[in-house]
Amino acid sequence: MSNKQLSKDGCSLNALSNLISELSKLPGLGERSAERLAFHILKMQGSARQSIADSIISLRDIKLCQKCFNLVGNIDEPFCDICSDDSRERSVICVVEQIEDLWRIEKTDVYKGLYHVLHGVISPLDGKGPEDITLEQLINRVKSCSPKEIILSTNPTVEGDNTALYIQKELKKPFIENGLIKITRLGRGVPVGSSIEYLNKAILISALMERKESPNF
Amino acid sequence: MSNKQLSKDGCSLNALSNLISELSKLPGLGERSAERLAFHILKMQGSARQSIADSIISLRDIKLCQKCFNLVGNIDEPFCDICSDDSRERSVICVVEQIEDLWRIEKTDVYKGLYHVLHGVISPLDGKGPEDITLEQLINRVKSCSPKEIILSTNPTVEGDNTALYIQKELKKPFIENGLIKITRLGRGVPVGSSIEYLNKAILISALMERKESPNF
Repeated sequence: MSNKQLSKDGCSLNALSNLISELSKLPGLGERSAERLAFHILKMQGSARQSIADSIISLRDIKLCQKCFNLVGNIDEPFCDICSDDSRERSVICVVEQIEDLWRIEKTDVYKGLYHVLHGVISPLDGKGPEDITLEQLINRVKSCSPKEIILSTNPTVEGDNTALYIQKELKKPFIENGLIKITRLGRGVPVGSSIEYLNKAILISALMERKESPNF
Repeated sequence: MSNKQLSKDGCSLNALSNLISELSKLPGLGERSAERLAFHILKMQGSARQSIADSIISLRDIKLCQKCFNLVGNIDEPFCDICSDDSRERSVICVVEQIEDLWRIEKTDVYKGLYHVLHGVISPLDGKGPEDITLEQLINRVKSCSPKEIILSTNPTVEGDNTALYIQKELKKPFIENGLIKITRLGRGVPVGSSIEYLNKAILISALMERKESPNF
């Protein structure tokens, strides 16, 4: 009995099969894990199930910050919590591909500047050009607020690197006009806590190329 | 910025934080994977998001078969697709812990008999006794339909084994009265496709104890 057979003519089984098929479309969930999750949700209290459904539905109310394109905390405000926070260092902008990246960096509790979320990368193979990301908005922002530093924190992938390079070129003009101090990139090399034995060639090559003089003791 | 901070005062961020916290309660999903899923759902089309929510909500319409406690295909019917299927071997009942187990066995396409879903196991440590599973219903069913074989397919765990033993004892009376032929258990031993090198002691001990004479060629 396949899922298809299980659900034939069945309203109630259909509900479960539908959920399994919906869940198995999500990243990292195969059919087996989708099944496991669906059965778990099936066994939950009705109210717990409803609250998952509600939280999915209420995602439609989400809004992006007009300045940095992060998620806005209070939908009545035009700007996000970070852009509205006066204690943040306003002269540094960290440019990231996605909101997830912003969250990850925020969780380090080390960076205290502002952000700019590109919402994608330039990737000609996927038909994504500079107009598909928030690059124009970044340039306008740099022109108007003249930050001291822009940290290009795109992913260390071909697309991420190319996007960073493109942004750097585009920023050159407002950069010079406004007396920006620097455009930086995240350091790259061997990830802290890893074993060299298991790292791939590309990581090791970049770590060798980016090697630094050891501090004197 | 923790998730908590992220969501302070925020209606829209609250939605995302809620979803992450709901998802991270599901089995096999840690906070990181819950975040990844939530962001993926956030980026989906509104209609796709709605259809996940709908399929979760419609699980409330699910109904169990009055005979075997499997899910009922059509909620207007009292019995499930398997119990209503005349081509199934009606003299064999496979007793499983959960509906998931039934699905897994059905997918082998080898078993053609009926089922009985216990919806749990006897587990005194968790405060679960015989009255918490569908044992009484199984006994009544055996009394009334006198099957030829009952396959006790509980999990090969302490609780599963104890439950099977308990059921076997309870069934003895209707078993003898009704001229049942046999009560069987699933074969146990080394799982097909595994490497002996990686199997644990308990599996190897059971495989040694359940060893069979090699067929002659």
